Amino acid sequence: MNSIISKEQIIAALAKVEDPELHRSLTDLNMVRKVDVKDDIVEISLAITVPNCPFKSQIESDVRAAVGALPGVKEVVIQMGSMTDEERKALMGSPEEGSAAKYNHIQNVVAVMSGKGGVGKSLVTGLLATALAQKGYRTGILDADITGPSIPMLFGMQGPVEPGPVGLRPLQSRSGLKIMSMNFLLANEDQPVIWRGPLIGKAITQLWGDVMWGDLEYLLVDLPPGTSDAALSTMQSLPVRGIVMVTTPQGLSAMIVRKAVHMSQAVGVPILGVVENMAYFICPDTGKRHLIFGTSHADEVATVAGAPILAQLPIHPDVAALCDAGQVEDIRLEEMGGLIDAFIKAAPAQKRNQHD
Amino acid sequence: MNSIISKEQIIAALAKVEDPELHRSLTDLNMVRKVDVKDDIVEISLAITVPNCPFKSQIESDVRAAVGALPGVKEVVIQMGSMTDEERKALMGSPEEGSAAKYNHIQNVVAVMSGKGGVGKSLVTGLLATALAQKGYRTGILDADITGPSIPMLFGMQGPVEPGPVGLRPLQSRSGLKIMSMNFLLANEDQPVIWRGPLIGKAITQLWGDVMWGDLEYLLVDLPPGTSDAALSTMQSLPVRGIVMVTTPQGLSAMIVRKAVHMSQAVGVPILGVVENMAYFICPDTGKRHLIFGTSHADEVATVAGAPILAQLPIHPDVAALCDAGQVEDIRLEEMGGLIDAFIKAAPAQKRNQHD
Repeated sequence: MNSIISKEQIIAALAKVEDPELHRSLTDLNMVRKVDVKDDIVEISLAITVPNCPFKSQIESDVRAAVGALPGVKEVVIQMGSMTDEERKALMGSPEEGSAAKYNHIQNVVAVMSGKGGVGKSLVTGLLATALAQKGYRTGILDADITGPSIPMLFGMQGPVEPGPVGLRPLQSRSGLKIMSMNFLLANEDQPVIWRGPLIGKAITQLWGDVMWGDLEYLLVDLPPGTSDAALSTMQSLPVRGIVMVTTPQGLSAMIVRKAVHMSQAVGVPILGVVENMAYFICPDTGKRHLIFGTSHADEVATVAGAPILAQLPIHPDVAALCDAGQVEDIRLEEMGGLIDAFIKAAPAQKRNQHD
Repeated sequence: MNSIISKEQIIAALAKVEDPELHRSLTDLNMVRKVDVKDDIVEISLAITVPNCPFKSQIESDVRAAVGALPGVKEVVIQMGSMTDEERKALMGSPEEGSAAKYNHIQNVVAVMSGKGGVGKSLVTGLLATALAQKGYRTGILDADITGPSIPMLFGMQGPVEPGPVGLRPLQSRSGLKIMSMNFLLANEDQPVIWRGPLIGKAITQLWGDVMWGDLEYLLVDLPPGTSDAALSTMQSLPVRGIVMVTTPQGLSAMIVRKAVHMSQAVGVPILGVVENMAYFICPDTGKRHLIFGTSHADEVATVAGAPILAQLPIHPDVAALCDAGQVEDIRLEEMGGLIDAFIKAAPAQKRNQHD
């Protein structure tokens, strides 16, 4: 007895299912390897790009839903395999520099900069990214501090990262941020990266172009201190929309941050706003504010930058403790609400139809 | 009437007077241009190497003393001029890279490093240098942070620097430290240095080899964050005897400092000791210690470094204020005594016969 369902119908249904990462249909991607119909039971063999694909179960359920919706189908049996290296190469071309970038759609690249070290760039990056994710924006963090990366520890994350079909897959944080850092690529986090500048610059362009960031409304780039290779490569090779400049009350910080402001102006990247970190310490016993690092220079920096002050954040022992515990996503500071609203106002994004 | 003093006697006396910077006699240096004797009055014309020589008055008084001591001399009249560029070139050769280095005698080059930014490397450098000077050691600071120099502001100093006969002259701080920083060479301190790594490395070797450091027991090199060009060039091009590693209580700092420790070990430069900065804050109202940045990781860092803890320094609002006011030399912390004793024990120096 012939089935009332034709293979063609099934293949047409599969042609409408997209790989959630590559945004091309399973048939285009040559993933559909066999379709058998026995009465009202459909058997499908799929070959996904790489065996460890994190979207494996999503592809399976999308296929089940699409084919199961066809009239007359009672059961869908799916066999999942993966492509050989040759098949993947034939489909995607050899993985080469920047090949992941073709599949990425990133609305806003924003660099978090300071010039000065230890002012809390990574903390501000982590707080901003977490708040953006909470507001429903798909957000990533590119840790551009190759020799002194802080982001992995703040999020309690470590490598290794897995290769995807066209580049490395970023790791996902607990709140769903996509994160990539040089530290994920090292055998252990204590290993130093003793590289001269040109390699530092190249590493950053690879963390941009060879990573499968996918669809993001925001990618925050956490820059290291200084106005040398990392900052230059980021501003010259990435489509940076703007910069969040981080400072602290010390006049010393303000002077060095002004250097960073002048660099941004020299390379033509606008400053979206200024965040002053470690603005004061509230003694838990007396409730009194102590200006541990002196009186604010934020106004001065904001004037030179021609940008608003987005927030002034206090020193809080809980913040240091949560950072060390890898729980930056759990930090709640009342100043954060104002910061995130001001940030989104300075760099608005459209939430797009979300695939993943 | 003939004088009883001969020109030859006078020239022999001048041959024993040394240029305090170049350590060669005035006659060798062709500085003596004319000697006239009229009865008991001696007239001497000198040509010093450069018109703005800071040792001009010292040379004058040394000459006056040497010639005035000759029997029969009543008065010494000295005319000070300076050499032409051609004369100076004929004497010293063209100023070329590293030509100052030939005249420098530096017993101990010690780098102050961290890997992490903002932990207080420059503060520790400033405190150590000041304490060494107070103990009578001739001490200099080479600020190797080309893009984010803190040393000039901590000491309240700014350029320009003057060229000397064979290189740039370092500036002198109030307590007599010789200091050289990229910021002294910029038109204004806010100007960014937007250079890629190879230029950063070259700048550091020039601050070493093209600066007239003279005789020093200690030259402290204040490194920027990271394990890239600045650290590499310093450790590979300068005779670094050892490293003072600076950390803070945050686990995050400790992780990045461990990278710097491993770099030092990889390039074979010993670590002399570990300084933990921002160890705690004493509330001025209650006297209670607050571990603002968490509990200490100094033991851990010291174990990895195989070096002792030299000191644990508190956070003190006065410290930030004095730093911002350019008065790092006025900071008095009771922890400093132990620090400087432990430092000198780890890197002892012989106080030599002092020329200046």
